[in-house]
Amino acid sequence: MTENAKAVRPHVVIIGAGFGGLAAAKSLAKAPVDVTVIDKRNYHLFQPLLYQVATADLSPADVAWPIRGIFSSYSNVRVLLGKVTGVDLERRQVRAGDLKVGYDHLIVATGALHSYFGKDEWAPLAPGLKRIIDATEIRKRILLAFERAETAEDAEEQRRQLNFVIVGGGPTGVEMAGAIGELANWALAKDFNAINPRDARILLVEGTDRLLGAFPEELSRYAERVLEKLGVEILLNTQVVDCTDKGALVGETFVPAATIIWAAGVAVPDIGGWLGVETDRAGRVPVQPDLSVSGRPEVFVIGDAAMVPWRGELSVPGIAPAAKQEGRYVADVIRAETAGKARPAPFRYRHFGNLATIGRNAAIIDVGRFRLKGWLAWWIWGIAHIYFLIGVRAPILVAAQWFWAYLTFRKGARLITGLEPLFEHIGKAADPAATGTERRDRRPTRRTGP
Amino acid sequence: MTENAKAVRPHVVIIGAGFGGLAAAKSLAKAPVDVTVIDKRNYHLFQPLLYQVATADLSPADVAWPIRGIFSSYSNVRVLLGKVTGVDLERRQVRAGDLKVGYDHLIVATGALHSYFGKDEWAPLAPGLKRIIDATEIRKRILLAFERAETAEDAEEQRRQLNFVIVGGGPTGVEMAGAIGELANWALAKDFNAINPRDARILLVEGTDRLLGAFPEELSRYAERVLEKLGVEILLNTQVVDCTDKGALVGETFVPAATIIWAAGVAVPDIGGWLGVETDRAGRVPVQPDLSVSGRPEVFVIGDAAMVPWRGELSVPGIAPAAKQEGRYVADVIRAETAGKARPAPFRYRHFGNLATIGRNAAIIDVGRFRLKGWLAWWIWGIAHIYFLIGVRAPILVAAQWFWAYLTFRKGARLITGLEPLFEHIGKAADPAATGTERRDRRPTRRTGP
Repeated sequence: MTENAKAVRPHVVIIGAGFGGLAAAKSLAKAPVDVTVIDKRNYHLFQPLLYQVATADLSPADVAWPIRGIFSSYSNVRVLLGKVTGVDLERRQVRAGDLKVGYDHLIVATGALHSYFGKDEWAPLAPGLKRIIDATEIRKRILLAFERAETAEDAEEQRRQLNFVIVGGGPTGVEMAGAIGELANWALAKDFNAINPRDARILLVEGTDRLLGAFPEELSRYAERVLEKLGVEILLNTQVVDCTDKGALVGETFVPAATIIWAAGVAVPDIGGWLGVETDRAGRVPVQPDLSVSGRPEVFVIGDAAMVPWRGELSVPGIAPAAKQEGRYVADVIRAETAGKARPAPFRYRHFGNLATIGRNAAIIDVGRFRLKGWLAWWIWGIAHIYFLIGVRAPILVAAQWFWAYLTFRKGARLITGLEPLFEHIGKAADPAATGTERRDRRPTRRTGP
Repeated sequence: MTENAKAVRPHVVIIGAGFGGLAAAKSLAKAPVDVTVIDKRNYHLFQPLLYQVATADLSPADVAWPIRGIFSSYSNVRVLLGKVTGVDLERRQVRAGDLKVGYDHLIVATGALHSYFGKDEWAPLAPGLKRIIDATEIRKRILLAFERAETAEDAEEQRRQLNFVIVGGGPTGVEMAGAIGELANWALAKDFNAINPRDARILLVEGTDRLLGAFPEELSRYAERVLEKLGVEILLNTQVVDCTDKGALVGETFVPAATIIWAAGVAVPDIGGWLGVETDRAGRVPVQPDLSVSGRPEVFVIGDAAMVPWRGELSVPGIAPAAKQEGRYVADVIRAETAGKARPAPFRYRHFGNLATIGRNAAIIDVGRFRLKGWLAWWIWGIAHIYFLIGVRAPILVAAQWFWAYLTFRKGARLITGLEPLFEHIGKAADPAATGTERRDRRPTRRTGP
């Protein structure tokens, strides 16, 4: 049957509908192949803006787009919702639970999560920011921290609720620190009675000697200055040694903190096992110059899951343009093969540059010799992201929300959602004696305050 | 201490930040009182549009607004996040876990949930639509049903996944039936390979002899015709007798269905117990003509939680305008009392009319002798809701999303979010034998289909 089917059209299976997988599938949409995209979620996630969900600027639906919607006009692409559990390389089948899907070409584009450097037990204490549930969880924790500080009886506990530790000074860590700073300084500033949100202490902890290591030093220093103006404390050359439900051991100092956010390291789950290959410590799979796996010319690995050497580094940067280029390249290889032509020349990554945002009116751009910082860079960052959102989400809607938030300093998506028992514990730290509650009870409201 | 404090300013505690609670708090914002609003969620929910979250038209943040944001400019209103667990009427204290909040006036405005008529075990099988987590849960179930139908091996299971049973033919049931019909007929129509979403069977089950009983019969019949055009089957004079995880017993027929949505009955939890009063079977509290509780002139119940007789009915309609009028009335009573004046005349509900939407270009309006149906009613419905959203969420953003969806027939918020193990069971119904999967494996894609 497989032989028969092969005579019809080769079948390309793509695992993962991130930037790499989508680019490959779109590139193959008009080729004489059948394509199946398997993802465990029904949406493509526009990861560069995910942090804005965590900081209540955007809603999940603003940064995610149903995969079926993306491919509804591509007649040779089908979409399967399923969690891949293994690959049978001999029979050329992808397994997703009981479901088996045969392939002629396989593209593995599953992406990466953050790495806890072997301390996976920290994950629930210090969530990373890779999935929508991470973002809504972090949003919930940040907003609940202010709520709990408001009702805390105990000054120490109140202090702890207002401490935020962010681990990792890469783009995600910098964006989160900046956005929490803005939340505390502007969006929430007038919303509480017992606390001043501006008292929040935001610690950004980075292991190396500067933030945003991928950028020139001059732009890193600029990012530090902007964050410091927002009240962010930056600790360089410092490691987070331990995380507990009370706080983080930062270097040799224990910082009591209710909210710890993890934005460090790279970990690629599972793929080495599926493909039976050695990976690097992060789980990334080494690939041939054509991005195929050694000895398996029909199996490709792209995006954050692949190790593609570049300029003396172990791999190209883990950014969307790199994954897209790899996806398109692999589609070219498969098209050539299907047409009976020779495989194209080895993959070459074209680096267009880096851009990162720090906060309102502050971003940095590094494109070859062109460097820019400040408000113009920030507008360019915004316009570039609106542009890349095209095809993902009606970009005009995101633009409208940003513009609204820009004008009003408000954050629209400040929802603490989740299961019911959320608020049962509020006030648990309070002294149940009547005196304490009587005091709180009559706490002067703002009109009577200073 | 209480006497002392009372000398300063009376303290009004409002439980619940729905339409009634908000109206009362806003009305008291400039009065010489201190106001505390307690809610177990940090947002006000614009319930009339909640069904649009369940049907992937809007995001949660479009229909919810942080309570703190609403009151940040009211200096005598403070907001507490907490789940009320009881009321001590003698000591005039509201308990929320360990937290105790004293009051001089108490306004109970907790709203209502759907009633399962004593069969609370059906709740997880047939979720209602009262909270954001209900809406995202229903959205997940609807979208997953299509996904599971797409991968089902077994024709019977595929059929079951495409059956939707909606219990209750009031506004929520009608809106849900219409919106699922549109999802199946338009938004999802081209997105699948193995199934045709238009084959979805949508059953709307109503116990009385017509839909939308609060409207004149002529408009009910119109709603039936519109729904039938969308492919909705309407079963009148029919009860849902049982719900299981396989489907619903509708009258005497068992309908296999993966998705059951509950939109019937009214249940008010807890309040009778808190206040030590007899309630009706739905848990609603009977109130005096001034909306206070018998023998407790300082305690008021408003909104869906209260029984306020009207035109021979047990209570005024459970709609936002009624709750708002009651909230404002109670604020007047408290203001009069604080000023040492007599209580105002008894509460009188002013009914402005009903409006309901059925689907695209189809709504009904009933305002006294003025009745309207069709596209103009639908535009009026839309504009009225945009208008009432003012102060809740930047209404221009919701308008932009509606307009976008109107032009494109797309639904932007089609996200299946939640915990990870969601998709583990997909394909579990499949025959694990290789033959079955080989068949699926090579299922022709649309290009090769008919």
